[in-house]
Amino acid sequence: MHEPQSALDFARQHRGAALEDLKEFLRIPSISTLPEHKPDLVRASNWVADQLRQLGLEPVEVLPTAGHPVVYGEWLKSGDSAPTVLVYGHYDVQPVDPLKLWESPPFEPAIRGEDIFARGASDMKGQIVAQLKAAEALVRTSGLPVNLKFMIEGEEEIGSPNLGAFIEQQRTKLACDFCLNLDAGVLGPDVPSLTLALRGLAYFEVRIQGPAGDLHSGTFGGAVENPANVLARLIAGMHDAAGRVALPGFYDHVRPMTERDRADLAQLPQAEAWWMEQSATKALGGEAGFTATERATSRPTLDVNGMLSGFTGAGSKTVLPAKAMAKISTRLVPDQRPEQVHKSLIEYMRRSAPPTVDWEVEILAGAIPGIIDRDAPEVQTAAKALEGAWGKPAVYKREGGTVPVVGMIQELLGVNSLLLGFGLPDDNLHAPNEKFHLPNFYRGIETLIRFLAALPA
Amino acid sequence: MHEPQSALDFARQHRGAALEDLKEFLRIPSISTLPEHKPDLVRASNWVADQLRQLGLEPVEVLPTAGHPVVYGEWLKSGDSAPTVLVYGHYDVQPVDPLKLWESPPFEPAIRGEDIFARGASDMKGQIVAQLKAAEALVRTSGLPVNLKFMIEGEEEIGSPNLGAFIEQQRTKLACDFCLNLDAGVLGPDVPSLTLALRGLAYFEVRIQGPAGDLHSGTFGGAVENPANVLARLIAGMHDAAGRVALPGFYDHVRPMTERDRADLAQLPQAEAWWMEQSATKALGGEAGFTATERATSRPTLDVNGMLSGFTGAGSKTVLPAKAMAKISTRLVPDQRPEQVHKSLIEYMRRSAPPTVDWEVEILAGAIPGIIDRDAPEVQTAAKALEGAWGKPAVYKREGGTVPVVGMIQELLGVNSLLLGFGLPDDNLHAPNEKFHLPNFYRGIETLIRFLAALPA
Repeated sequence: MHEPQSALDFARQHRGAALEDLKEFLRIPSISTLPEHKPDLVRASNWVADQLRQLGLEPVEVLPTAGHPVVYGEWLKSGDSAPTVLVYGHYDVQPVDPLKLWESPPFEPAIRGEDIFARGASDMKGQIVAQLKAAEALVRTSGLPVNLKFMIEGEEEIGSPNLGAFIEQQRTKLACDFCLNLDAGVLGPDVPSLTLALRGLAYFEVRIQGPAGDLHSGTFGGAVENPANVLARLIAGMHDAAGRVALPGFYDHVRPMTERDRADLAQLPQAEAWWMEQSATKALGGEAGFTATERATSRPTLDVNGMLSGFTGAGSKTVLPAKAMAKISTRLVPDQRPEQVHKSLIEYMRRSAPPTVDWEVEILAGAIPGIIDRDAPEVQTAAKALEGAWGKPAVYKREGGTVPVVGMIQELLGVNSLLLGFGLPDDNLHAPNEKFHLPNFYRGIETLIRFLAALPA
Repeated sequence: MHEPQSALDFARQHRGAALEDLKEFLRIPSISTLPEHKPDLVRASNWVADQLRQLGLEPVEVLPTAGHPVVYGEWLKSGDSAPTVLVYGHYDVQPVDPLKLWESPPFEPAIRGEDIFARGASDMKGQIVAQLKAAEALVRTSGLPVNLKFMIEGEEEIGSPNLGAFIEQQRTKLACDFCLNLDAGVLGPDVPSLTLALRGLAYFEVRIQGPAGDLHSGTFGGAVENPANVLARLIAGMHDAAGRVALPGFYDHVRPMTERDRADLAQLPQAEAWWMEQSATKALGGEAGFTATERATSRPTLDVNGMLSGFTGAGSKTVLPAKAMAKISTRLVPDQRPEQVHKSLIEYMRRSAPPTVDWEVEILAGAIPGIIDRDAPEVQTAAKALEGAWGKPAVYKREGGTVPVVGMIQELLGVNSLLLGFGLPDDNLHAPNEKFHLPNFYRGIETLIRFLAALPA
């Protein structure tokens, strides 16, 4: 394999400029779930489009959807014999609450030690800028030997509700050999790794209504069933004593792990102590009979993401709340599908909710799980690129998180997604003090240069 | 019994002025639990003190406590042979959230039909103004034949945390034959009634902490136990399948209801349909083996008053929350005590909380239950006064709510509290659109005139 030395040299000489561009991107508070940030989503999409234009892509378009726009750009100068890679990313970020737990403002990037702190640093503006800089290094030196198409969306953090329709409409434009999805990570600063599988997602809001309005808990407590107590009972019943999800039929479509799957996961440097340290938890928990790595990456789960009822301010208010709400999400593994889990949840509520309350279940997001063959050529090329940048062999892992577009691309474009990203497990994704490890940012650029330079035709 | 006709006539002629004074009092947003309303508590206490001065009480003092001040005033001109009545009330009110459910602003009193709508109208500014106007009518006509002491506090809605210390310090000043406590109600506009018992209160905040910070539910879901799920399980376990409170030892000190107690309650016009209508609930719930009236007034209960964890805004956020909180209160009956319930809750948490989380329980409020002998002379005088004002005999009831001062006065001053108030069960206490029924306001004034005029020496 030829070393793309001139491109690697270029990238090393321009690290300062790469970092400045990353900071600029991070300053845009592109929180997709909050309507008041809509103008920031537009700014972020234009920022990405400008970068692609500066790289020489043609055309570059900011295409509208029913929600936030998708940035599309293409570089097809390498001809029909070269592979065509569809680069996927998202320019939107998670909300920042609780804001008071941030050590520096989430949209004012701050470098402490070897990390850059900002919302979106790891998930995933840092990964997008790494890819832009890798392409730039090749374009400015030895040349880009592959065709690239960029599809950078603005709704990943809300479950990509409009991306499916977009891909369907743009099927011809998006045709490619495979998708390079940068929304992924490695196991540690010194553990180059490739992701073979992702979990899917089915996210719901469950709402319980008892009396028409809030009541005095002294006057009515005891006579009227309390919706918050009912909700707690319903949530408690969603797991059995062994930590298994107790929704009817929940496991019906779960592909059992093979002995080889379990052996692979056992080889990763992710013992129980690693999970405790990464999560800053004093003791792990979950489904009986599986290791923490298995539970977090290869077994389906059910988690409360939010819960609200009654009076939650300082002090005491003796209210019997009229209603209670929980955001509840499940992570799915092959071959579960979100719509099947929705049916399971509805069936559970029908069986378990008492006649003293009304209830409703709203679907907030859904995505099928993703999986890729480790023997595919793009997987092997990526493994060698990681080894080149890190100086040690890559390991194969699975991720517990969800990238909805992986399933969509599988279903709509008929191609696999290669998950190649540089985030770390302790990057505080979706939490206060999100960070990106700068050595990973620079090694990520080098990995992507090596990968793009070496892809077989 | 001599009819205090001149005082009754005076009161009828001055209803307009009484209503204007009530409106003025209701415009002061004296929410005791919110620190930003501290100046309004001062305004409300001064408003009460001014009213007492205008009545001719001497001295009238606004006495500081560690929290909001207590208004004290005395009229001892009837001499040692006349009974001395300590009038208790509170000038503070509950918070108003959710504000958007109010049909008119909570601190701009609005009359619709025969009701006046405002926070505090029924609980209990309306009752205080009724007593002021009853005393005024006697003072301005036939004379006040009893000695009166007023003790109007500003912290009832937060559990009267400083009133116990106040009463201990002012024991001599507060000496009396009994306490007239106006913080009560009647069963319906046409059902004059007297309250023989109140439930006590033990109010807690339970906090669960799992990981040090919020985590990504995809990355860590399954490996790390979810504090919100744990809290739901703990709350669910606080009741058994029969709706009984499952905290260890919770019922140890509960005085069983007698057959006569149950027969008395069965005679009240409070069938299941009444409870459903009053609470605007489609079906009642609670402890098996008891009627709704028994459950709401004479059996102890446990209710979630508030619950909060994770992301509760619009849309979805895939967070595994670091912590979860519930405000949980129990209503107590004789001879339960808040400190015993606290021990039960701590013991329950010790037995039931998993080792994967840390937990703490904070005591937010506590009050012993209250009970009075129906054959006491003040009870019988009040029953006759109600009959005089309503033209029909009064019934005896129990209330599910808590008036902490009743227990304090029993313990610290050694006297009973007579609960004589004019609120209605559907007055929306502690909820949006609190109201007071104006016919009850006027009949309340007349009842209190008759009561004060007829008290035996």
